[in-house]
Amino acid sequence: MTEVKTGKNTSAALLVVGSVALDTVETSRDRREEILGGAACFSCCAASFFTPTRLVGVVGTDFPAAHEDFLRSRGIDLGGLEHTPGRTFRWAGRYAADFNTRTTLDTQLNVFETFKPKLPSAWTETPFVFLANIDPALQLGVLAQVQKPRFSACDTMNFWIGGKRADLLRVLERVHMLLLNDEEARQLSGESSLPAAARAISAMGPQAVVIKRGDAGALLFQGGDVFAAPAFPLDNVVDPTGAGDSFAGGFMGCLAAAGDTSPDGVRSALVAGTVLASFCVEDFSLDRFRVLDQGQIRGRIAAYADLLRFQAPRI
Amino acid sequence: MTEVKTGKNTSAALLVVGSVALDTVETSRDRREEILGGAACFSCCAASFFTPTRLVGVVGTDFPAAHEDFLRSRGIDLGGLEHTPGRTFRWAGRYAADFNTRTTLDTQLNVFETFKPKLPSAWTETPFVFLANIDPALQLGVLAQVQKPRFSACDTMNFWIGGKRADLLRVLERVHMLLLNDEEARQLSGESSLPAAARAISAMGPQAVVIKRGDAGALLFQGGDVFAAPAFPLDNVVDPTGAGDSFAGGFMGCLAAAGDTSPDGVRSALVAGTVLASFCVEDFSLDRFRVLDQGQIRGRIAAYADLLRFQAPRI
Repeated sequence: MTEVKTGKNTSAALLVVGSVALDTVETSRDRREEILGGAACFSCCAASFFTPTRLVGVVGTDFPAAHEDFLRSRGIDLGGLEHTPGRTFRWAGRYAADFNTRTTLDTQLNVFETFKPKLPSAWTETPFVFLANIDPALQLGVLAQVQKPRFSACDTMNFWIGGKRADLLRVLERVHMLLLNDEEARQLSGESSLPAAARAISAMGPQAVVIKRGDAGALLFQGGDVFAAPAFPLDNVVDPTGAGDSFAGGFMGCLAAAGDTSPDGVRSALVAGTVLASFCVEDFSLDRFRVLDQGQIRGRIAAYADLLRFQAPRI
Repeated sequence: MTEVKTGKNTSAALLVVGSVALDTVETSRDRREEILGGAACFSCCAASFFTPTRLVGVVGTDFPAAHEDFLRSRGIDLGGLEHTPGRTFRWAGRYAADFNTRTTLDTQLNVFETFKPKLPSAWTETPFVFLANIDPALQLGVLAQVQKPRFSACDTMNFWIGGKRADLLRVLERVHMLLLNDEEARQLSGESSLPAAARAISAMGPQAVVIKRGDAGALLFQGGDVFAAPAFPLDNVVDPTGAGDSFAGGFMGCLAAAGDTSPDGVRSALVAGTVLASFCVEDFSLDRFRVLDQGQIRGRIAAYADLLRFQAPRI
């Protein structure tokens, strides 16, 4: 097995629950069929550069062994990856030339349709937990299996906000952070301004709310504390699939490694998430992560600090 | 006349050329008829908090004296405001509930249609010049009247990029900075990624390119130096009209006051522009500027620094 370097040997473990998928992706310039995807894979892989990571998900009998080998080579523990008779979850989508709009062409839930996340007993005390975008009823099922994590975050989407609101609200009572995009934040809160939306969502439970805005970056609200994390400007975006999941995974992995869940610690980890997302979109699938190293991550963190550097104007 | 405080008594003067308008604005919550507007008014007013400002524009015989009194009360020199028989330029528009889309309902050029900017002779050596969004042929006419300004910036729009490209390219050979929005940057450059678009535009002349992205903020490219200035998150946007012009005016005013046109000086001034734009949208017309003071600006600059503050994550 390839040696995996994480920032600290003392890093706390991160548990990620979410989809493992085979994606077919079309951009204006290229197309890839049945490539490795799924929120859990992107999140775990991004997190794996920082901390030991545990994946809970499901695949069918058709899932290539090479994909599992790759995830393991990143130090990801697949002890929670269920193998179920049937086909793996598949998603197909097409991006517009500016990458800002995405059309889903096909979704086949397959074995994911009856997925009930079950944690290996040794994992129930994992201190950091990320619930990727799945049915909030399943997110609740995971939360019922973990013992008071130090920090838990969840993602969601318009489909659950509209159709499973009661379950989602029960999840929000129990997690430390919700990550969602701007339209979802407006839908969930009924507020049009993002600061007002974040306040309304915080009142539902989470102490931190991250509003994602695609290539415009993200806003982090922690009570009255607000942090703006613009996206890293990239010359060559190849495939935005998984950017949000890599953002969440990089964030949670860095948070678990540093162990600082204070508002400033959360800001710092969000920069790691932003940087990991910027690498993710530079190639299809998780391919950029296959050749990424910690020196490159450090270099981009330094470039990001330079991107936001300024002397306050005097008046 | 109200005493006008600008940061330094030694501030260099700023010349602004652009429209003076009477706007009719509809938002999802409110409507205002024939209120003071126009790029030159927003830009001059924002700049006036930093430096002495000179306005070149045109109004008709119907332009209310009270508007001129207000602009003068901000210390704006109206020696270049032409009074022409006829009606003042009028614009009417409607904003969607999220303020991100705007529909122009009516445009009446009126006296603006035959406007030929003519600088008072004492103004031809003004060291800082902002050419707001007008026909690039007129922008060239202004540049022909000024003696090598220390720093000149111009705005433009899709209409001129498409219809007056040759004139626009001649302007770009002569100005230090171009400000435009992301779609305009793509249209002008033919590049879809913003860093590539900025490089292509820089090759047309300007050493600095600012790509504006509405409530997502702006990106400043100065050769290889990139600065991301997210918008200040606001609870209550009332009317986005004039935000881009206030951004440019606050930027140019601060740059003229500080006198530092180095890349770091330009970054710093861009923060001032971001902050002035954030005030502009908090009320209709220039009304927020009527009650704004330098303490409030200083306070928001400090809040902005806090918004972007982070400790680099360790890996």
